[in-house]
Amino acid sequence: MLFKAAVKPGSEKGDGRPFISWFNPMRLIRSGGAAFFILLATVWPALSSDWGTGALMVVVEREAGSVLVIDSSQDHKVLGRIKGLGALHHASISFSRDGRYGYVVSRDGFLSKIDLVKLKLVSKLKVGDSAIGLAVTQDNRYIAISNYKPGNIVIVDEKTFKVVKTIEADDSKTVGLVDAPDDLLVVALMDANSIWVIDAGDPDFPVIRKYENIGEKPYDALLTPDGRWYIAGLFHSPWVAMVDMWNPEHITKIPLPRPPGKEDAPPVLKIPHLEGWIMAGKTLFAPVIGGSGLAAIDTTTWKMKKFIPLSAYPVFAMARPDMRQIWTNYVLGEHHDTVEVVDVKSMKVIRKLKPGARVFHMQFTPKGDAIYISSNGDNKILVYDTKTFELIREIPAAKPSGIFCSARSSKFGL
Amino acid sequence: MLFKAAVKPGSEKGDGRPFISWFNPMRLIRSGGAAFFILLATVWPALSSDWGTGALMVVVEREAGSVLVIDSSQDHKVLGRIKGLGALHHASISFSRDGRYGYVVSRDGFLSKIDLVKLKLVSKLKVGDSAIGLAVTQDNRYIAISNYKPGNIVIVDEKTFKVVKTIEADDSKTVGLVDAPDDLLVVALMDANSIWVIDAGDPDFPVIRKYENIGEKPYDALLTPDGRWYIAGLFHSPWVAMVDMWNPEHITKIPLPRPPGKEDAPPVLKIPHLEGWIMAGKTLFAPVIGGSGLAAIDTTTWKMKKFIPLSAYPVFAMARPDMRQIWTNYVLGEHHDTVEVVDVKSMKVIRKLKPGARVFHMQFTPKGDAIYISSNGDNKILVYDTKTFELIREIPAAKPSGIFCSARSSKFGL
Repeated sequence: MLFKAAVKPGSEKGDGRPFISWFNPMRLIRSGGAAFFILLATVWPALSSDWGTGALMVVVEREAGSVLVIDSSQDHKVLGRIKGLGALHHASISFSRDGRYGYVVSRDGFLSKIDLVKLKLVSKLKVGDSAIGLAVTQDNRYIAISNYKPGNIVIVDEKTFKVVKTIEADDSKTVGLVDAPDDLLVVALMDANSIWVIDAGDPDFPVIRKYENIGEKPYDALLTPDGRWYIAGLFHSPWVAMVDMWNPEHITKIPLPRPPGKEDAPPVLKIPHLEGWIMAGKTLFAPVIGGSGLAAIDTTTWKMKKFIPLSAYPVFAMARPDMRQIWTNYVLGEHHDTVEVVDVKSMKVIRKLKPGARVFHMQFTPKGDAIYISSNGDNKILVYDTKTFELIREIPAAKPSGIFCSARSSKFGL
Repeated sequence: MLFKAAVKPGSEKGDGRPFISWFNPMRLIRSGGAAFFILLATVWPALSSDWGTGALMVVVEREAGSVLVIDSSQDHKVLGRIKGLGALHHASISFSRDGRYGYVVSRDGFLSKIDLVKLKLVSKLKVGDSAIGLAVTQDNRYIAISNYKPGNIVIVDEKTFKVVKTIEADDSKTVGLVDAPDDLLVVALMDANSIWVIDAGDPDFPVIRKYENIGEKPYDALLTPDGRWYIAGLFHSPWVAMVDMWNPEHITKIPLPRPPGKEDAPPVLKIPHLEGWIMAGKTLFAPVIGGSGLAAIDTTTWKMKKFIPLSAYPVFAMARPDMRQIWTNYVLGEHHDTVEVVDVKSMKVIRKLKPGARVFHMQFTPKGDAIYISSNGDNKILVYDTKTFELIREIPAAKPSGIFCSARSSKFGL
C-alpha cells in the first residue's frame, strides 16, 4: 500500500530511471546486497495488519455510508474506516465467528461483508428492497437476512456470497431474526402474527415449526444469551410471546406489566428495541410501556417487584456484561443528551451523564470495563470507564449511530 | 520471513551478484521498473497473517513444550505451532482481551506471551518455582500468576512484561486465581484457609478483603461467568465456600451433597477441577465426591434433586455454551478413552464416545457447534459435531493435553 502510493506516475513507463524518489532500491542492492532486504524485513511488520479481532468496536457513520473501526484493546485506537456501504439508516452488524468479518445490512436492502483485518469492503449484495436485520448461523456458513419488503428471509452463503435460498413469509414483513443452537434460525412474521423456526443445518432450509396466533403484530424479538428463550414483543397485544427452545411444543404468553397507576391503560404503539430487555438472575428489567422508567420483574411470578423511575422513556437499556449496571438513553425529546446508569443491586439511578447531543447508541467492551456512546449530534464517540464514570476518550466520528463489538460473534441471537 | 529464508549465504558479502537464486529483483527492476513492485504487492497479502483471533483453539503439547494453533472458523485448519514454552505439565492459558495474545503459565514457573497472529513466542519470564494458574485483569493491563512455591501472587505488566508487584501469601500456596469485575482479582490460600480480594485497579495492588477460616485447605475455585459468585472447593471440609461479590461482607458455606447411600461417608481427597461445576438455570451440576456420577443440585435449596450415573468419576464435566449438554471424561483407569454426553433436559446420558486413548481435555468452539477433544495416548485432536456426534476432523498433535479457546478472553474467571 505504502509502496504503491509512493510510485511516481513515470514509473509505469519502464524507462529504467530510479522510480521512487525518496527511496532507491537499485542503489541499495548494487551497493549493499542484503541491506535492501534487511530494510524490507524491518518495514514489513509495520505495514501488515497488527491486531486481534476479539474486541473491535465498529461504529456506523450513517450519512457517510461508512464504519469506523476502533480497537478497544489498544487504548481505543482508531484503526481505520471502511467506506462505500450505502445508506446505513438502522443498519445492523453481525460478525463471523472469529470476528474477522462484519456483515452490515442496510435499510435499503444491501448486505456488505467487511474485512476487519484488511479494513476493506469484500463483497456487497442486494438482498431486498427494505431489510431490517440479520443473523449468522451457528456453524458460520450462512448469513440470514430478514426483509420488510419483499416479506421474506434470504439466506446467503458466507463464502460465495450468493443467495442460496429465499424463504417466502406469507407476504409478511419479517422481524426479530436470530441464530439459535443446533443451527436453527428463529424469526417473527409481523403481518402474519407468527413465529417460525428454520433448520439452517438442512440444505433446503425447511421451516420446521410455525407458531400461529401468537398475538397482534410482533415488532421485534430477542433470544436470551444461552440460546434458550425467544421472546417476541407485540404492538397490539398486552403480552409478549415466548418460545422455550428446549420445550418448543407451544408458546407462552406473558402479560406485560404496566407502570404504577396505569394498570388499565392501553398499550402504546411505540415500543423500544428488545435489546433493552435484561435478565439479571431471576429478575427481568424492561422499559415500561407508556411510562418513564424500568420495571424489575420477578421471572418466577412475572409480577413487577420494583419500578425504577428515569428521566424519560428509554430507547435502549443495556446491561454491563456482569449485569451490575444498566445504562439507558433517550434520543428523542429534551433528554436526548442524557445517559442514566441504574445500579442493579440497589435498583437506583446512581449516575446521570451528559455525553453530548443526540445519544443514539451504546456498546460495552467485552468485559464491560468501558462503554462506547455515540453522540450523533456532536459527531463523536465518548468512551467512559464504567467503574469511575470518568470520560477516558473522545473519538471524532461522522454522525455516528449504532456501535457493535466484535465479541458479539460468540453469542447467540446477536 | 520467506525472503529471509531465500537469501543465500553469499548475499551478506555485498559482492554485487544477484543474491537470490530463484528470483532476481535487479533484473526485474532494470527491465521493467514497476513490475517488481507489482509482484511484491501480489505476494504481500499471502505472506501476512490472514485470520481473526476470535475462535482460535490452542492445544498444549506438553512434552514438546509447544502449542498448536487451530482456527475453528476456517474448517478447523492448523495455522501453526509455537515452540520453546518449557515444561507444560498442567499448563494453563489465558488470553488478551482481543484474542491476539495467549499467556501460558507452566508448572515450572514460566510465563510465556505468545502472539497468535504472527505465531511466535514474544516474551518469556520466570515468575515462580511452581506456578499453578493465571488471570488477566479486566482492563487487560496485567497478568496475575498464582504460585505454589513461593506462596505468592505475582503481577506482570502486559506491555513491558516485567514483574510490577509480588504479593506474599502468608507462606501459603495460592490457587483458584480469577479476574473479577471492577478490576478485582480473587484468590484462595490453600495453607491459610483464606480467600483474598486484590484491587488491581490500584497501582499498589492492595489486598482489600481477607476471608479467614473458610474451611480446611481450599484446592481450587471458580467464578461464575457473570463475575458474581466465587466458589472455592475444600479438601478437608464437607462444604464449598462461596463469596457473593455483590454482597462481599461474609462468605457462605454450602454443604456438599453425597451420593445416594453414602450420605455419611467422609469426603474423599481427590476432587475434580472446579471447571466441572456447571450452572444451568437454577440447577448446579457437579461431580459427586466419592461417587461415579453427576449431581444435579437445586441452587434455591442446595439439595440434590437428581443423581446421574456415569461410567466413572469424571475429571472434567464441561457444559456446551447453551447449557444443553454436559460432556465428561475420566483420564485414569479403564475409562480413559471414554467421553459421555449428558442431556441437561432429560438428565440422562445420551451418548458414549470412544475418541481415543487417554482423553485429557475438551473444549467447545465459541457457540458450541463443535467440541475439541485431546487424545493424549493417540497423539491427536478429535473434533466432533455436538448435534450429530459425528467425528468431523482428526488433527495430529504431539501428546496433546489442555485445549483453550481464544473466546475465553471475553469471559470473567478464565
